[in-house]
Amino acid sequence: MTKTLLKSLLIDQPSGTPESVIVRCLSQRGAISAAQIARMTGLARSTVSTALTGLRKSGMVVEIVGPQEGTKGVGRPAAALALNPEAGTCVGIHISLDEVRLMVADVSHSVIAEQNIPLGVDYTPQQAARMAKEVIAQSYADKGLPVSGLLGVGVSVSGPVSPDGVVQRASIVPTWAGVNIRNVFGPVLQQPIFADNESNCSAIAEMMWGAAVGHEDFVLFKIDLGVGGAIVQNGRILTGIAGGAGEFGHISIDPTGDLCRCGNRGCLELYASFTRPLEQIARVVGRSVTMDDAILMAEQGDVRALRMIGDTAEIAGRGLGMIGSVINPPLIIIGGRMALAGDILLVPLVASYEKHTLIKARDLPPELRTRITIGKHTENDVLLGAVGLVLRHHGRLQ
Amino acid sequence: MTKTLLKSLLIDQPSGTPESVIVRCLSQRGAISAAQIARMTGLARSTVSTALTGLRKSGMVVEIVGPQEGTKGVGRPAAALALNPEAGTCVGIHISLDEVRLMVADVSHSVIAEQNIPLGVDYTPQQAARMAKEVIAQSYADKGLPVSGLLGVGVSVSGPVSPDGVVQRASIVPTWAGVNIRNVFGPVLQQPIFADNESNCSAIAEMMWGAAVGHEDFVLFKIDLGVGGAIVQNGRILTGIAGGAGEFGHISIDPTGDLCRCGNRGCLELYASFTRPLEQIARVVGRSVTMDDAILMAEQGDVRALRMIGDTAEIAGRGLGMIGSVINPPLIIIGGRMALAGDILLVPLVASYEKHTLIKARDLPPELRTRITIGKHTENDVLLGAVGLVLRHHGRLQ
Repeated sequence: MTKTLLKSLLIDQPSGTPESVIVRCLSQRGAISAAQIARMTGLARSTVSTALTGLRKSGMVVEIVGPQEGTKGVGRPAAALALNPEAGTCVGIHISLDEVRLMVADVSHSVIAEQNIPLGVDYTPQQAARMAKEVIAQSYADKGLPVSGLLGVGVSVSGPVSPDGVVQRASIVPTWAGVNIRNVFGPVLQQPIFADNESNCSAIAEMMWGAAVGHEDFVLFKIDLGVGGAIVQNGRILTGIAGGAGEFGHISIDPTGDLCRCGNRGCLELYASFTRPLEQIARVVGRSVTMDDAILMAEQGDVRALRMIGDTAEIAGRGLGMIGSVINPPLIIIGGRMALAGDILLVPLVASYEKHTLIKARDLPPELRTRITIGKHTENDVLLGAVGLVLRHHGRLQ
Repeated sequence: MTKTLLKSLLIDQPSGTPESVIVRCLSQRGAISAAQIARMTGLARSTVSTALTGLRKSGMVVEIVGPQEGTKGVGRPAAALALNPEAGTCVGIHISLDEVRLMVADVSHSVIAEQNIPLGVDYTPQQAARMAKEVIAQSYADKGLPVSGLLGVGVSVSGPVSPDGVVQRASIVPTWAGVNIRNVFGPVLQQPIFADNESNCSAIAEMMWGAAVGHEDFVLFKIDLGVGGAIVQNGRILTGIAGGAGEFGHISIDPTGDLCRCGNRGCLELYASFTRPLEQIARVVGRSVTMDDAILMAEQGDVRALRMIGDTAEIAGRGLGMIGSVINPPLIIIGGRMALAGDILLVPLVASYEKHTLIKARDLPPELRTRITIGKHTENDVLLGAVGLVLRHHGRLQ
């Protein structure tokens, strides 16, 4: 009963009643006070109070006392309200080259299960959907969760996704190019499907659980084996007309440069990702090196790893300086695996940003400066974000 | 009485009553129907109807029949509602190197007067404010308008303006660097002061009277003796934390390139503005050449002018391709004086954009493509936009 009602309020109703507005707010924010709900929704405090009485009576909203994982630093009061963890669950799926990863979380923002499904590099989207269905059923059975409590499935894709759910460019996962995510997962899973590209999912993860909690406007810049990004404004991901916003890795910085996998020349990704630096380090040390290896080497003072991370920071800062001259955001979060290098990456990156962007921090009072910081999630950000698609009702495919 | 009330609804009330919401909607949109007001404001049609009855009775809102300048193409119905032109006026001011330009318009979006005040290159902000006061008084007297009907003054500045009204960088108008616009104009004019940079004002002009009427999301890219720009999202100008959003001319595309007036190297403005092409044309023709001369030469088939415009289009398209990979906007409007070249500029620019941006039009259905078009205003866009600051209540300095 409660589950049906929650699904109706959270997923089906396009807008409307105070109850559905409050449930969506809690779904997005985790645990907050009644006063915060009133402020965030714009509803009158008396309206919030009346609606909450009903929602608590029905068991859909519960009071949480004491600190809870993932909500630290949000200024959460001692007694906060949250959706009843038993009232519903979400599934997040991440599609990558040779596997599909899957996460189950409840509406109070707690992760219940996580699983990787190896599929081999030539798997078809249909195989992925069938396997996802099996794994979801198995995970729910293992945890004793009713599948009827599933509110929706969020899909994170390594490529731009158009508003109608078509994967636009999929050089990382070629079998998904041109595929309509809704058509693949909808009929098999029989659930509301949400989708966006992986960097936008990472931004949602940082916004809901990470370094952007409490921030409505920021830019995410991921430095990994590729370069990705996302723009958040007024708490919403900027998708662009065709799903192509935030594709920072494919800013062409040298029109005569090397060919990029996207078909353009001299894309930022070729210079600011850590793929080429790893090749350079591997060449001089005479063995293959991972990003984690390189970071460890740099932490131990290896001048070669330090130089490669510094050079990457320099050009990433230059690319971010361009983005700064376009958007002038209040906050930039550095994500991706290389963010684990911390200050070794951040310090030269910030210096390079300051050098190349138009508006210089030194000319501004602190409150007008763009703050650049390391993200909190690098391991499972895309999966958390895929769950977040459902909780934030972002990227719903109709 | 009506004037006092309008000022109260339009300027003083931070939010609130249906009347103030409707008056602000009409102030932004010009002439629209009651049904459009309901849709745009989200108010119930019955609420709109009741409030409009009161507003018409007080003479603040009037019915307009037949077509009216500046509202064509918006799908305006035969009988539309607008603010009573007699109910209030706005002043727009544009600050440039050696003069201050001034425009008076009424709340129905009609221009009443326009005037240039030559001041010489070394004028102080205080002189500008005093002269503005005199010219406003004179203009209002000439037209028989009561100064009491003045609702506010919008100021367009050739440089980024921070949210608190400080001119951040003013290489075009050096005497204004670091000046607080509110402190200069507020005490002298004794009016609510609004301010933003000139490209943002141009975007407002295109949104209210030009090529972006009916569009809530677009990018403006100005090609003139400099390069400027603006980003509009959900009908609002994106200002950035320190007023530095949309500074496309200062995307540094070549970190080893020539020094730019902003203090960085290789800014897009050095290559995509028409300053260097004019020098090149002047050198080969043996006389000084203006932008209008060059456009005329190109229209008459002069291969030298055609080449320079083509080369500028190529690099402007490349710069816009970068912006496309960051924002993926539905609409890009080309403004600035060089936009008068029309297709001579636009055709190679669109081809270059398609070449250099990530998401290619050829891969997309028409409804997902970024449309690039020439703006409607190149002559008085900054002044219209300065008036628009007041009408749209954007950039209010408190």
